[in-house]
Amino acid sequence: MYKSEAFVRVRYADTDQMAVAYNGNYFTWFEVGRNEFFRSLGYTYKELEKSGVILPLIEANCKYIHAAKYDDELIIETKITMLKGVRIKFEYHVIRKEDNVILARGFTIHAFVNNDLKPLNFKKANPEIWNILKDKVWEE
Amino acid sequence: MYKSEAFVRVRYADTDQMAVAYNGNYFTWFEVGRNEFFRSLGYTYKELEKSGVILPLIEANCKYIHAAKYDDELIIETKITMLKGVRIKFEYHVIRKEDNVILARGFTIHAFVNNDLKPLNFKKANPEIWNILKDKVWEE
Amino acid sequence: MYKSEAFVRVRYADTDQMAVAYNGNYFTWFEVGRNEFFRSLGYTYKELEKSGVILPLIEANCKYIHAAKYDDELIIETKITMLKGVRIKFEYHVIRKEDNVILARGFTIHAFVNNDLKPLNFKKANPEIWNILKDKVWEE
Amino acid sequence: MYKSEAFVRVRYADTDQMAVAYNGNYFTWFEVGRNEFFRSLGYTYKELEKSGVILPLIEANCKYIHAAKYDDELIIETKITMLKGVRIKFEYHVIRKEDNVILARGFTIHAFVNNDLKPLNFKKANPEIWNILKDKVWEE
Repeated sequence: MYKSEAFVRVRYADTDQMAVAYNGNYFTWFEVGRNEFFRSLGYTYKELEKSGVILPLIEANCKYIHAAKYDDELIIETKITMLKGVRIKFEYHVIRKEDNVILARGFTIHAFVNNDLKPLNFKKANPEIWNILKDKVWEE
Repeated sequence: MYKSEAFVRVRYADTDQMAVAYNGNYFTWFEVGRNEFFRSLGYTYKELEKSGVILPLIEANCKYIHAAKYDDELIIETKITMLKGVRIKFEYHVIRKEDNVILARGFTIHAFVNNDLKPLNFKKANPEIWNILKDKVWEE
Repeated sequence: MYKSEAFVRVRYADTDQMAVAYNGNYFTWFEVGRNEFFRSLGYTYKELEKSGVILPLIEANCKYIHAAKYDDELIIETKITMLKGVRIKFEYHVIRKEDNVILARGFTIHAFVNNDLKPLNFKKANPEIWNILKDKVWEE
Repeated sequence: MYKSEAFVRVRYADTDQMAVAYNGNYFTWFEVGRNEFFRSLGYTYKELEKSGVILPLIEANCKYIHAAKYDDELIIETKITMLKGVRIKFEYHVIRKEDNVILARGFTIHAFVNNDLKPLNFKKANPEIWNILKDKVWEE
């Protein structure tokens, strides 16, 4: 039952003329969440890529509940909810730090590919990090 | 059975170090698609906002099938697949113009709010554009 | 002789297919630097805007010395080098935290306007923060 | 005396809570201008990169005169004002199409590097495109 926390602050650049964070930015925050997820396990996504395992998205989803606003501090809670031979699923909560309100929920599903973007077997390609991740899959 | 077409070209800024368009940019392209959808009906989203109807997202989804790459010309096909008193759903195909391959499919669901981001009844607030949209809902 | 420090980590979204941070992102980091500059003085830019003083850019400049790369931790050093009745100038150093190398130097010059984007006299509009800033102007 | 024209429309994603286009986006539009500059000469920047010549920025500058707003159509006028053995300078005008008003002026200066980001002699590396560009340098 493992989840990580990353922190971001809403930038002026993130806002739009509705005076809220633009919808596409949440997916960048999800990336920040994934990045921190790996780092919290002592293994960076950067190292994973260097080992030849890249995780392109095959699906992304976000449900917007309350708007994030300029200068809000956000917590990006991240967990793995599926890990199979060919894909991995991360789930995210975007939480306003000030009052702990969940602003958005989302997920991303990723394939495993090599540097030429060809599918690979993650478990064989990098058993070390595979085993670390396997242990962290969130079981409801 | 109405759909609109918008055109974008993948910018260098859109790419990431995987040498493909970053996942979050597809949601900006969806916005370009929505914008063109309204324009194609002779009514811009800008005018809609000025009339006091704003369409914030409540959900966004994208399935990535093939990667969009730098300088690719893309067609963003957009249609409405649901229009109710309180929400509207757009669906999108991101198509590579060169060979007509679908690179991604997605949708966005929007609420109707006023300038203070309070829910409103779109049909009452702007019956003119409501009726135009109603006629364009895609029925499978 | 006052300067503030803000910290950012290069996101995957920030990279381009040259595998370095895209040039336009440095200006977003400058914004993060300005934001932290105000916060470090006990007064947020958000509060400044709420008081009716907005600082749109009239010029921006960046000299790129070494490339920022994915996952690099960066320090954004920010100082004020000019404060006049009608404009303010911030200067920035983007520094790679790992080895303290300066990756980029830049500046932004801002006008003072009200909520309708009309010019205003900052000193009169908000003498409290004006006086705080006046004390912090960097004299070479 | 050659200049090219590219066209962009301000996206909702480009706006910020001042209800104008965020300052950093102008540098992306400059990129769109450069891209179109090459294309207008019958040679794409994409091809140039494939030939092993990459043009990273060493300096970027923008003077903001009037704000670009949501849905504005913009013309990005682009010309080369310097071409030397080791660098090239592009200058840009961002023009509002509706009334031909110049919203911003800017420039970017680029080095020539190979795929490993090492400096190279553009003239030797790709004399064909070098000669095309040489003819197009804008002399005031």
